Amino acid sequence: MAETTPTPPAAPAAGGSPAEVLAAFATLDTDRQARRGYPEAVYCAGKTPAQVGLIAADARRHAQVTLFTRAGAEHAAAVLTALPDAVHDPDAGLLAWPPEPPPASGGLVVVVAAGTSDLPVAREALLTARYLGRRTELVVDVGIAGLHRVLGHLDLLRSARVVVVAAGMDGALPGLVAGLVSAPVVALPTSVGYGAAFEGVAPLLTMLNACAPGVAVVNIDNGYGAGHLAAQIAAS
Amino acid sequence: MAETTPTPPAAPAAGGSPAEVLAAFATLDTDRQARRGYPEAVYCAGKTPAQVGLIAADARRHAQVTLFTRAGAEHAAAVLTALPDAVHDPDAGLLAWPPEPPPASGGLVVVVAAGTSDLPVAREALLTARYLGRRTELVVDVGIAGLHRVLGHLDLLRSARVVVVAAGMDGALPGLVAGLVSAPVVALPTSVGYGAAFEGVAPLLTMLNACAPGVAVVNIDNGYGAGHLAAQIAAS
Amino acid sequence: MAETTPTPPAAPAAGGSPAEVLAAFATLDTDRQARRGYPEAVYCAGKTPAQVGLIAADARRHAQVTLFTRAGAEHAAAVLTALPDAVHDPDAGLLAWPPEPPPASGGLVVVVAAGTSDLPVAREALLTARYLGRRTELVVDVGIAGLHRVLGHLDLLRSARVVVVAAGMDGALPGLVAGLVSAPVVALPTSVGYGAAFEGVAPLLTMLNACAPGVAVVNIDNGYGAGHLAAQIAAS
Amino acid sequence: MAETTPTPPAAPAAGGSPAEVLAAFATLDTDRQARRGYPEAVYCAGKTPAQVGLIAADARRHAQVTLFTRAGAEHAAAVLTALPDAVHDPDAGLLAWPPEPPPASGGLVVVVAAGTSDLPVAREALLTARYLGRRTELVVDVGIAGLHRVLGHLDLLRSARVVVVAAGMDGALPGLVAGLVSAPVVALPTSVGYGAAFEGVAPLLTMLNACAPGVAVVNIDNGYGAGHLAAQIAAS
Amino acid sequence: MAETTPTPPAAPAAGGSPAEVLAAFATLDTDRQARRGYPEAVYCAGKTPAQVGLIAADARRHAQVTLFTRAGAEHAAAVLTALPDAVHDPDAGLLAWPPEPPPASGGLVVVVAAGTSDLPVAREALLTARYLGRRTELVVDVGIAGLHRVLGHLDLLRSARVVVVAAGMDGALPGLVAGLVSAPVVALPTSVGYGAAFEGVAPLLTMLNACAPGVAVVNIDNGYGAGHLAAQIAAS
Amino acid sequence: MAETTPTPPAAPAAGGSPAEVLAAFATLDTDRQARRGYPEAVYCAGKTPAQVGLIAADARRHAQVTLFTRAGAEHAAAVLTALPDAVHDPDAGLLAWPPEPPPASGGLVVVVAAGTSDLPVAREALLTARYLGRRTELVVDVGIAGLHRVLGHLDLLRSARVVVVAAGMDGALPGLVAGLVSAPVVALPTSVGYGAAFEGVAPLLTMLNACAPGVAVVNIDNGYGAGHLAAQIAAS
Amino acid sequence: MAETTPTPPAAPAAGGSPAEVLAAFATLDTDRQARRGYPEAVYCAGKTPAQVGLIAADARRHAQVTLFTRAGAEHAAAVLTALPDAVHDPDAGLLAWPPEPPPASGGLVVVVAAGTSDLPVAREALLTARYLGRRTELVVDVGIAGLHRVLGHLDLLRSARVVVVAAGMDGALPGLVAGLVSAPVVALPTSVGYGAAFEGVAPLLTMLNACAPGVAVVNIDNGYGAGHLAAQIAAS
Amino acid sequence: MAETTPTPPAAPAAGGSPAEVLAAFATLDTDRQARRGYPEAVYCAGKTPAQVGLIAADARRHAQVTLFTRAGAEHAAAVLTALPDAVHDPDAGLLAWPPEPPPASGGLVVVVAAGTSDLPVAREALLTARYLGRRTELVVDVGIAGLHRVLGHLDLLRSARVVVVAAGMDGALPGLVAGLVSAPVVALPTSVGYGAAFEGVAPLLTMLNACAPGVAVVNIDNGYGAGHLAAQIAAS
Repeated sequence: MAETTPTPPAAPAAGGSPAEVLAAFATLDTDRQARRGYPEAVYCAGKTPAQVGLIAADARRHAQVTLFTRAGAEHAAAVLTALPDAVHDPDAGLLAWPPEPPPASGGLVVVVAAGTSDLPVAREALLTARYLGRRTELVVDVGIAGLHRVLGHLDLLRSARVVVVAAGMDGALPGLVAGLVSAPVVALPTSVGYGAAFEGVAPLLTMLNACAPGVAVVNIDNGYGAGHLAAQIAAS
Repeated sequence: MAETTPTPPAAPAAGGSPAEVLAAFATLDTDRQARRGYPEAVYCAGKTPAQVGLIAADARRHAQVTLFTRAGAEHAAAVLTALPDAVHDPDAGLLAWPPEPPPASGGLVVVVAAGTSDLPVAREALLTARYLGRRTELVVDVGIAGLHRVLGHLDLLRSARVVVVAAGMDGALPGLVAGLVSAPVVALPTSVGYGAAFEGVAPLLTMLNACAPGVAVVNIDNGYGAGHLAAQIAAS
Repeated sequence: MAETTPTPPAAPAAGGSPAEVLAAFATLDTDRQARRGYPEAVYCAGKTPAQVGLIAADARRHAQVTLFTRAGAEHAAAVLTALPDAVHDPDAGLLAWPPEPPPASGGLVVVVAAGTSDLPVAREALLTARYLGRRTELVVDVGIAGLHRVLGHLDLLRSARVVVVAAGMDGALPGLVAGLVSAPVVALPTSVGYGAAFEGVAPLLTMLNACAPGVAVVNIDNGYGAGHLAAQIAAS
Repeated sequence: MAETTPTPPAAPAAGGSPAEVLAAFATLDTDRQARRGYPEAVYCAGKTPAQVGLIAADARRHAQVTLFTRAGAEHAAAVLTALPDAVHDPDAGLLAWPPEPPPASGGLVVVVAAGTSDLPVAREALLTARYLGRRTELVVDVGIAGLHRVLGHLDLLRSARVVVVAAGMDGALPGLVAGLVSAPVVALPTSVGYGAAFEGVAPLLTMLNACAPGVAVVNIDNGYGAGHLAAQIAAS
Repeated sequence: MAETTPTPPAAPAAGGSPAEVLAAFATLDTDRQARRGYPEAVYCAGKTPAQVGLIAADARRHAQVTLFTRAGAEHAAAVLTALPDAVHDPDAGLLAWPPEPPPASGGLVVVVAAGTSDLPVAREALLTARYLGRRTELVVDVGIAGLHRVLGHLDLLRSARVVVVAAGMDGALPGLVAGLVSAPVVALPTSVGYGAAFEGVAPLLTMLNACAPGVAVVNIDNGYGAGHLAAQIAAS
Repeated sequence: MAETTPTPPAAPAAGGSPAEVLAAFATLDTDRQARRGYPEAVYCAGKTPAQVGLIAADARRHAQVTLFTRAGAEHAAAVLTALPDAVHDPDAGLLAWPPEPPPASGGLVVVVAAGTSDLPVAREALLTARYLGRRTELVVDVGIAGLHRVLGHLDLLRSARVVVVAAGMDGALPGLVAGLVSAPVVALPTSVGYGAAFEGVAPLLTMLNACAPGVAVVNIDNGYGAGHLAAQIAAS
Repeated sequence: MAETTPTPPAAPAAGGSPAEVLAAFATLDTDRQARRGYPEAVYCAGKTPAQVGLIAADARRHAQVTLFTRAGAEHAAAVLTALPDAVHDPDAGLLAWPPEPPPASGGLVVVVAAGTSDLPVAREALLTARYLGRRTELVVDVGIAGLHRVLGHLDLLRSARVVVVAAGMDGALPGLVAGLVSAPVVALPTSVGYGAAFEGVAPLLTMLNACAPGVAVVNIDNGYGAGHLAAQIAAS
Repeated sequence: MAETTPTPPAAPAAGGSPAEVLAAFATLDTDRQARRGYPEAVYCAGKTPAQVGLIAADARRHAQVTLFTRAGAEHAAAVLTALPDAVHDPDAGLLAWPPEPPPASGGLVVVVAAGTSDLPVAREALLTARYLGRRTELVVDVGIAGLHRVLGHLDLLRSARVVVVAAGMDGALPGLVAGLVSAPVVALPTSVGYGAAFEGVAPLLTMLNACAPGVAVVNIDNGYGAGHLAAQIAAS
């Protein structure tokens, strides 16, 4: 939207219609489903709960699948006020509406969490892939320090069209998995760790330098991006 | 000011005149308007609210346009006590006095916020340019993921003497806009994002490496600097 | 191989059989084709030309598709001595043997080079995908500074099962393309640029922070990895 | 251009027309002059001399002002073969054709080199601005260690519509100049220095953090970008 | 101290003598005054208030000048309980005992704070120098954006045996001062600033790369170290 | 564990058996004692207290020595509920069960804390080594600024099979000790310090570059890792 | 040595005795064997060949085992002139004298090179350990991309008193090995790799963050340090 | 100097007077001796030999002590052509003219080189201090790995008015020396080392974080700056 000078820009006007107020801070990409085949997601961090609530109300009007990512407690409350039947995973900071995922199509997406602490981010990836229409499976706590744990899941891993592997600290698991399967691996670095893990930089670098080819890296803690990418790869 | 030894330096003395107390921690650059043509701004972060309040009181005495930047709630309260008619934009952390901007001169400054989360920094830029005497327009939520959104504002963008583009995450919008217009673009990286955005470093680097020439980069989240620079560029 | 103490380890013994000499410095992963469905590649950087030549001679014996990556002029000469009919792309530093790629299967891989300087890395990706059995197309010099150039290829881009986009400097093109197509985009940062491009770090960060989801990032200048990943994504 | 599979992509074909060969590696943005008002420049680094020579030959055909930047000796020879009357500044790595700059319009661009070692980059900026149609002046070796040197040029600096300041090491000069003039300052960090100058990172950071507002930062050693930006700012 | 195994090491035993408890976590360097000519300082950050209190009680016993640095409110309370007549500067996080500084000797130490926000760190430097026996003067808010401010103090600066200059943001002031005086300058970078100031890294680099020789750099926000170094330089 | 699609994955089900609930987020490596000779430790950061409590309850069932590291107050409460006789060192964030360490075997482990602020991390190392079956000694506050302090412990240091040295700030002590003893030194950088210590990066680099050979570096603040490594080195 | 002023310091005087010339640039630590139990090594990088030759001549006089590390071709020639019977491994940049290693004692040191390109650094470690008196074994090219390769050496790895693992790129192998054996692992990052491997930084970070405890990290490409540390750990 | 537009700026004109040619690229600070008490030095890196030669010729005219720093072989030849009696230390990259240093005054400057490889930088510091009029002494190869070596020079170190300590790798020596003497220590980090020494960053950080106060840090390899600072500190 374009705002005319010289009156000082006001806070969202109390008296405007919801659509007018919404237009003062957001230009929704409702065309995305048509253009890309996947709906827009709403990145809640940096938005006020009121802004998120207005977008949520608008989502119901457009009747598209909508994901709300990186939603804190207040964001979630605002979404649930507008869309009371939305599904909410607080650990993953994710809400989805409508609550029922679309019918599954395409190949299987297997999501692996190297450690328990990587689980919230892994779940964000898994739920994203599921709400974009894929079958999903979850494997937990199979880090590289105990090799037998991941090897015990080899059959499931080899049945996937794509594997998402979330790992912090040394971030070595995605490369290890990539060397064991023919499917591409989406490597999802997490900020789990301390000291020279540098909030996820160490696993990010490990994944970018994986000796085994077939590793697709996304941003640190970007479960949404990993799930979206996996859904595209596994599309029929 | 120079303080004499050896008595231990005291906290601002309760009994001094306001001017004496002010001189103990600040040397105002009241000459700036004459020298540069633009008034001094008061950077509030790192100052105590009491210090900011004393400076505000002094501003009224000098009767110059004064901007207070990066003002928290307590800073703002101190300013409003001294200058009750000051304009306050809490999201942007900005106060301006006197409340009425000077008559607009020079060319048009268009400020673009790539996403809703970039809006507070974009507004700091817009208000700074307006209080330094320029006409301003605001365009919101036109990030690169949905290209049609920014292309829809091409006429407005091409009418500007300078365009300020605030963006976080990949920071790609300023370079894209620079390739579409003949005016210079002030690229304003924001700390919006997470993980490998590194608090604004990623968009900062993107902007410094923009393929399209004509991109003037300022510090991360430096809306004041972007607005000031834009006002100078668009000066008549 | 394990070497017995205490005689000082010698340089590759002049009198050993080729297999024995090879075993002194390399343990080939001939099982990889069976395990992963893709053959091993030989990373030449850091190996002596003599070592690479021995591996090339062994490749003929195993009769598998073999790629030699990051091959300098001396590496290439050693490969061509052992495998005179190998295909050699000097700009990409790549050799492939046997020279005829396998019959193409799966979906289309479109490789985009943002600028002319990105072409060598883009060709490494394209040739890798082709020798792993995919159909490929190449698009060149369509950087973000002139938006109409990439938009002119939209039909081709939308016909791809996966798009590889190589870009240096601001690295903004992969995210832009991702916002225009439904297929996943493999983002391939290059070391093209100078100053704050930091040998490819700037485009790498841009791609990791792409606003549009669906971007799979690989290491800087890793054309082989990008092509391998694309081949896996586009597998039938 | 799009290349058809599965024949391996060849090197530029010996038998094609120049236009066909050119199209195999470059998509010129001949529309830029119309769209932005400034002609395209050819970034030579990373291109082969043969590629640059073909582009130069094409430039004559389009009869537009063309700048060749970051041209080494072999690039320059290739350009001069195609355009023997081009102007060549070897220190700045720049060639311009046609040799006569366009008639000067707009305001004055003053370019300042903090030290003698900054002069090549400063000259790249100055020549760029001149060939984009601006009047230019050059000031040399006025670093901050001897303050009287820059103060001696104050009248000239204050007569500029924009000042470009190239500086390495501590990079303090642009901020100092910005505090003395009303015009915007384009801050051009150079890789002059050693140790903790980190190839220009130190002056880059200094400029981004300049205490005085009105500083527009460009990439390290990016004389072309600084000159282009200055020409836009000083446009009439 | 050495603790015997295998009983698990306990928290400071309730029943031990103060000296025994103290020995369990600290080995004071009471020899330092004799060896170096300057007393030990107690770095409070990372110590518990109880530990600091025990050390303070011990200080009275040794009757040496003692500085407590980086003391939070609880640390200060613990010191003041043991040494009620200690001087406390809360902004600087410093306590000194005995309260009267030693008689001043040696040359003059002038401490300059570039901005008001740099004042706490500057005061830590000034008080340290004073309690180590030097005459001190303070100059405030004379940053490089208004050059006339620092030039107005030139006589005082030139009368100093050493000048300490505290600055954040671009950190350009120490180098500027060094170019104006014959005395060495202790450059004290502060974490004042935001974005690409990187918590003081930008001014630190500026100071390390100062064009003017004669700049002695200390750690970010290390007012104590700057004051100690200045006291040594100005010693008679 | 693998979870079946398409029902949305639920939070740990209220009605499952403890083993079932545990399996939903953790795959314990109970084989580690047999495979490596050392029991698994539970990294509490990033796990919920409820998760840690379930693991603690399971530990009693397996009757192995178990260490809980980086345990906050709520984690500790959860462990102590399940294992009321566990030993708890709140400063080190460590709990151990069963409370009695195993009989000591192997060589002596001497742990040195350079400063009082390094003590919590040093204690984590010492307790880990003790609960893995080694004799331990502790030396405190012997930093390099007062050389006589560490030289006074030379006999004890030379009697060790391995020395662990925890240090922040300049991190110089481990290299100094390594030059004085024949045993290997485990260098444990801590985040003690400020400014250019960069949360432990400075001492980490110092230790990696120690002039004296024989220095084994672990991650910043990784007392557990240092103690474990020391126990392995000192094993009989 | 201390040199008297004011005559300008000369280059090593042509007419002095060898001992005098040596004293002008080196102070040998001949006491090290007695103090630490291991002889001094001569770091050749940064020394002139002439300096290294003089030290080599001196070594014969002291009759101690001497290692010359990071020796280029000219350094090696100088050593071999003075000590013609020295052993020289050009790939590892190492010379040893006397040529026969001391009788082996202590436990077995197994050195693993993840890839062929890591072999020179791995050999530096192996030879160092051997010349410090340990039995050694070498395992080559067993990177994580083909897991069966390292698992095939499990018996040898489990028979070691210490395992040294050299790896570049993702640096994941040391952590993997540590999870499989009870002995400590010396992790030796190499500069093998490109792009985001950052000359060894990526594997260094991976190793510092290894999920499996028992990993002792040394500097990038520091084969000498790894071998020395391993010799100390495996000492009887 | 200011150059008039629009004629393209030429290379230094063949026919101008030396003073005119010099003015085209340099503005000498001949006032510095009067203003600061120390003469200007000529930083040769980045200047052409011809430029350096012109400056050298001018120096003879001004008859001031002049130092030429970071001079390569061609720079040195140019200086020696103009000033044949200049003193030249090729290792230090330094030339001085007139050859006889001024009469020594002030206190003693002791320069310490931690290792032989640090000697060139240490000599640059020593010669600078000597030509600025101080008495100097040199101590070589007394690194921290053999503590007795530096302790053997304690009397000399304690007789200094200031100690300069050059060290690479871990950079621990300056802090150690500072803890032993009452004089200030100028810490001079060198780029000696490899891997995680990061071209001098590691010793730089060590010195900035030295536990002992009294450490004045200069830029990496900045021997000139260290010597200049030491001369100022030791001035009478």
